[in-house]
Amino acid sequence: MTPSEPAETRTTTRATGRSAQTATLAEIAREAGVSAPTVSKVLNGRADVAPATRSRVEELLRAHGYRRRRAEASRSPLIDLVFHELESAWAMEVIRGVENVARDAGLSVVLSESMGRLTPGRTWADQVAARRPHGVILVLSGLDESQRALLTSRSIPFVVMDPAGDPGADVPSIGATNWQGGLAATRHLVELGHTRIGAITGPSRMMCSRARIDGYRAALETAGLPVDPALIRPGDFHHETGYREGLKLLRGPDRPTAVFAGNDLQALGLYEAARELGLRIPEDLSVVGFDDLPVARWVGPPLTTVRQPLTEMAEAAAKLVLDLAKEDGDRAATRVELATSLVVRSSTSVPPAM
Amino acid sequence: MTPSEPAETRTTTRATGRSAQTATLAEIAREAGVSAPTVSKVLNGRADVAPATRSRVEELLRAHGYRRRRAEASRSPLIDLVFHELESAWAMEVIRGVENVARDAGLSVVLSESMGRLTPGRTWADQVAARRPHGVILVLSGLDESQRALLTSRSIPFVVMDPAGDPGADVPSIGATNWQGGLAATRHLVELGHTRIGAITGPSRMMCSRARIDGYRAALETAGLPVDPALIRPGDFHHETGYREGLKLLRGPDRPTAVFAGNDLQALGLYEAARELGLRIPEDLSVVGFDDLPVARWVGPPLTTVRQPLTEMAEAAAKLVLDLAKEDGDRAATRVELATSLVVRSSTSVPPAM
Repeated sequence: MTPSEPAETRTTTRATGRSAQTATLAEIAREAGVSAPTVSKVLNGRADVAPATRSRVEELLRAHGYRRRRAEASRSPLIDLVFHELESAWAMEVIRGVENVARDAGLSVVLSESMGRLTPGRTWADQVAARRPHGVILVLSGLDESQRALLTSRSIPFVVMDPAGDPGADVPSIGATNWQGGLAATRHLVELGHTRIGAITGPSRMMCSRARIDGYRAALETAGLPVDPALIRPGDFHHETGYREGLKLLRGPDRPTAVFAGNDLQALGLYEAARELGLRIPEDLSVVGFDDLPVARWVGPPLTTVRQPLTEMAEAAAKLVLDLAKEDGDRAATRVELATSLVVRSSTSVPPAM
Repeated sequence: MTPSEPAETRTTTRATGRSAQTATLAEIAREAGVSAPTVSKVLNGRADVAPATRSRVEELLRAHGYRRRRAEASRSPLIDLVFHELESAWAMEVIRGVENVARDAGLSVVLSESMGRLTPGRTWADQVAARRPHGVILVLSGLDESQRALLTSRSIPFVVMDPAGDPGADVPSIGATNWQGGLAATRHLVELGHTRIGAITGPSRMMCSRARIDGYRAALETAGLPVDPALIRPGDFHHETGYREGLKLLRGPDRPTAVFAGNDLQALGLYEAARELGLRIPEDLSVVGFDDLPVARWVGPPLTTVRQPLTEMAEAAAKLVLDLAKEDGDRAATRVELATSLVVRSSTSVPPAM
């Protein structure tokens, strides 16, 4: 049974909730061998509770699928936005989208970073429980089961944007059509006449990155072109990797005439590698990125890339989490994917005559 | 008398503060013709106070230089970070710096945008008063007098980073040596042999932008070169402006052989203008930026620029505001300027033979 499931069912009895809920809270206090006020303290994230007591109470709250009634929750005018890492150059596009929705709703945005770990730290969850935001948006980041139970027991809804892992069917999430994007990027290169097309992937633990590279493979296979594992290099979505793996791809024998770089930053790293090897873009090498960051228009030559509407995705995530926060906001979990689109600029052309 | 002055003096009597403060609060209630609890509600940013009453009480709090005792303030584990505009591409460098310090202090960061206005809106100030953060960091943004009084009366310290206007001697602020940076950028071009050196400025209302262009002028004058007003174009620190004003500079008769672009984004816009006009960088045109954003290393050719340590500046601002939040944190207001440094890459060389 998933932690948020009983919450969903529980809310159906909200009309008669008060007594039911109070009983539950009293039950929990009894079972935990503490006073009801102590259980409230735990629910309110107050510091003055012994760790052992806190975890015993949390355990029972979880076991009972206890859920604080919304009216009781007295939310603060905040939305929590959690990034896997702020280094991700497109974080600003996402922040802007969440800010837009928060501003219109009279809310402020609390920003945190899960420090490259794919689930934010435990203290983070306690802080969120204590400040009671309207909701939590996780970017390329997930929650472990106890964190989900913690938020659910406080009626703090959460939405995952562009999930790094499989968020589970009961977790609302917003993404982009990454597979379609990888397909479109690679088809564009195939249609230009390229047959040796390399790729630099993102981290394999991220679904978005797996989807993009699967789209790349699908484009090659449907075009009857071989998929050469030697032309697929592992990346991590950073510029440095695009440069390093780019050098490996371009120095190798029988080098590719085009590369799907996985994202824009890796494409810029690839630009640097090509410059270093005296290869001209697009005459000697065609490059396609992914994201369409502002910088994609600014580099020379302007980058052909797959646009994912990051700001719109963030706005959709913020609107969804605010919906879920409403009294009547309970709903089946949703997975929304916004469309990606190929933006053809000057970094792609027909392959060089060899 | 500046709003924060009485606060500074007031705090010296903190030891005997309780009675004194209580008296003051009662006084204010009496003068306002309301109950003491009502004054507390205003202090706590509660919504259930009539606007007229609220402003009358705020007025008296300001007039009395009332300051909530720190012990009383029960801060939430938050730092407020306010940007003039999130579009500014270096916002992420600043956010990272504040996050670093906040994380170590177990605090979360609340992000807001003053929407291009140079002082955040009134509702923002009320929200801050209500959530009682440890402190407020304003980036390229200031506070009007009533906002300052509001924060001061709640003992919420604030620090201005890279002030857009003259923050006043009593406002703690963190900046960079912008004048030195403009001087170093232009001297570098002079030493390469350039005599027609253009410049694109930032917004004239921003002190940092005035300082950079004054440094540019100083470098020309100390080198005995004329300052040609036609070669100084007004900018706003955005890419588009670098492109548009770049075209004007480069299309003009007797075009400059080098341009100090004011910041990195305007330098990238200038790159685009040069490409469009078939001018090679650095052979036909030398370009120097300002900021040293990550992208400065990635573009072709890599950009010669003036590095300002944005992340370190943000860390310094966060540490300063946390210092001010300490019980014993009262101190004379400080103005810290971190050093800028010229980073020579490949966008500058000797002028073309003409």
